[in-house]
Amino acid sequence: MSEQMGIQSLCFSNPPCLIAGSSVVGKKESEGPLGGKFDVEGEDDYFGCDNWEAAESALQKKAMEIVMGKAGVVPEDIRYLFAGDLLGQSVASSFGLQSFEIPMFGLYGACSTAGLALSLAAMTVAAGYADLAAAVTSSHFASAEKQFRFPLEYANQRPFSATWTVTGSGAFLLASQRKAEEMKKRAYREKVYAEEETELVSAKWTNQYNVKITGVTVGRIVDFGVRDSMNMGAAMAPAAKDVIETHLRDFNRTPEDYDKIITGDLGEIGQEILVHLLQEKDIDISGNHTDCGLEIFDGKKQGTGSGGSGCGCSAVTLSAHFLPMLFSGEMKRILFVPTGALLSKISFNEGQNVPGIAHAVVLEGCAADVS
Amino acid sequence: MSEQMGIQSLCFSNPPCLIAGSSVVGKKESEGPLGGKFDVEGEDDYFGCDNWEAAESALQKKAMEIVMGKAGVVPEDIRYLFAGDLLGQSVASSFGLQSFEIPMFGLYGACSTAGLALSLAAMTVAAGYADLAAAVTSSHFASAEKQFRFPLEYANQRPFSATWTVTGSGAFLLASQRKAEEMKKRAYREKVYAEEETELVSAKWTNQYNVKITGVTVGRIVDFGVRDSMNMGAAMAPAAKDVIETHLRDFNRTPEDYDKIITGDLGEIGQEILVHLLQEKDIDISGNHTDCGLEIFDGKKQGTGSGGSGCGCSAVTLSAHFLPMLFSGEMKRILFVPTGALLSKISFNEGQNVPGIAHAVVLEGCAADVS
Repeated sequence: MSEQMGIQSLCFSNPPCLIAGSSVVGKKESEGPLGGKFDVEGEDDYFGCDNWEAAESALQKKAMEIVMGKAGVVPEDIRYLFAGDLLGQSVASSFGLQSFEIPMFGLYGACSTAGLALSLAAMTVAAGYADLAAAVTSSHFASAEKQFRFPLEYANQRPFSATWTVTGSGAFLLASQRKAEEMKKRAYREKVYAEEETELVSAKWTNQYNVKITGVTVGRIVDFGVRDSMNMGAAMAPAAKDVIETHLRDFNRTPEDYDKIITGDLGEIGQEILVHLLQEKDIDISGNHTDCGLEIFDGKKQGTGSGGSGCGCSAVTLSAHFLPMLFSGEMKRILFVPTGALLSKISFNEGQNVPGIAHAVVLEGCAADVS
Repeated sequence: MSEQMGIQSLCFSNPPCLIAGSSVVGKKESEGPLGGKFDVEGEDDYFGCDNWEAAESALQKKAMEIVMGKAGVVPEDIRYLFAGDLLGQSVASSFGLQSFEIPMFGLYGACSTAGLALSLAAMTVAAGYADLAAAVTSSHFASAEKQFRFPLEYANQRPFSATWTVTGSGAFLLASQRKAEEMKKRAYREKVYAEEETELVSAKWTNQYNVKITGVTVGRIVDFGVRDSMNMGAAMAPAAKDVIETHLRDFNRTPEDYDKIITGDLGEIGQEILVHLLQEKDIDISGNHTDCGLEIFDGKKQGTGSGGSGCGCSAVTLSAHFLPMLFSGEMKRILFVPTGALLSKISFNEGQNVPGIAHAVVLEGCAADVS
């Protein structure tokens, strides 16, 4: 039986379960609309480190530790790890994750990396290559500004179209249905223990084995000729449009088949462009679209410009905000579409365009079945 | 049936066929021992571009065009593309491959990227997710020196332990057995046409459907505390040792089960360390080990220090040198182990170590069966 759907999608016959997510964020994120929902909210953005890059590595390490703790597993239980970040040569991931000694696939998809990592981890588990796999990604406001634009000390001004890189890391664990079933039984036996903690933890322990990644649509690079590194939303919106349009066609679905279509970090400007571009194709997502970059910050109050961005933006928003709604049954099916802008300081300085890429992941919750 | 072998390997029950490889290199590579074997050998290293990064993108584009030409396919035939390079934010791949509009998984594994891309492409095809997938990677001496050390204009001196980044790109096409069989039949029908060209082309056309990727061992990050960015061989050898040792244990094989065990770019110093580290574990690869970095340059004549390096090093050496030997039946089974050093200019300047990673890919040739 082929799992290939249409021209660039996959529909899994044995969909893996997304059994746990974690989120570690900085101070500004904790002050936004989602404050209080994250697993760890840092007091400052150094996380006990000497520099921003090491701080970003610390975020990833913490996110992995938490997600393993939630699922009650140790690194040896995880067969493969899919990870990446925004920094040159992905050093946040290399130094953040090496201590776990998990066989690792290093990725680069700019801010779409959460989609890339979840897609590949889902493909790997669905194929029977692993019973348990992890997907991790991160970004850090200060390391990203230094990497892509100007060090903070330069105190440059930012236009409204600029997005604000989220300081955060999200980690996810994907399990085969067999493994998830086994873990669900164990968790149920330990339920008494969980109930001594908060109600939220308890809910997570009982429902977390019922959310599946049922399909993916792998994105292509789309170049609309945008050259402004302070307007990433415009650079990425065409790629998001391309993958959402293809996804709906490949799966023969309409936007209404999803409770929400959730892009990664288009921000206010990118959202407007995306909705407009899809309307031109007679696809109306205006009623059920949202963007992680719009969820995580209150732009007017927090001065974050067009919205949040970075690999960490979509990862922590999925983990802290949307995944719990899938776990609880409040949402049944979402399309998660992290978006990335493909540029480097060098490509920008050499006058190249900023093409975009986006990957779409279908997450579906099922009714909890713990007896 | 599980395809999981041991703790971190996969053995494919439906191994994909590596049906074609291509290699595009610069001038220095064409003057080395493998000169004449590459598909394209550039006159200068700009490849018609204005800067080194664009030149590297041009290498990738050319490598893709050639490999598609060899297999007689167009971009639309290729379902997924796995690609990465050494530059920050993988810009060589983004700008080199976007015109093909193939759904793309962006990777970063430093110089191990050829192993990473071949592993994921093989996993994807073996799982039935694609009938045809491509794996592409590149490096460029000048863009890498600028990225990791000093721009060439600085004319810095290099110790003997330093390796020389290969200017080159290798692309590979992987097909499902069904697809390969279909293509073989078509190629046979077109054989008369092929024989009008050189004998080499003819041989490739008839044998290229019989080489399979039968297994992979995904590597972990290994940190031996090396901090010298001018001695990459020493930084990567422990990771190569780790993955080779695990591979042999996972598959219950000995080094003699392989015609050659071929690391990516350890060079002379790294090779010595690798052989020694494995000897300590009672594994003797001294009789059948080689390194792409040692094959591609004549260090004494060409002043390339410890050997060649870069993502492109292992990719073009596999494509131009070893793959033809598998196609011809001269070699039956090789273990291809591209090696990567995980550092960036920033991590180096901040005093971090240089950990390594390596991924092992099993390639097996079968007797040609064209009737």
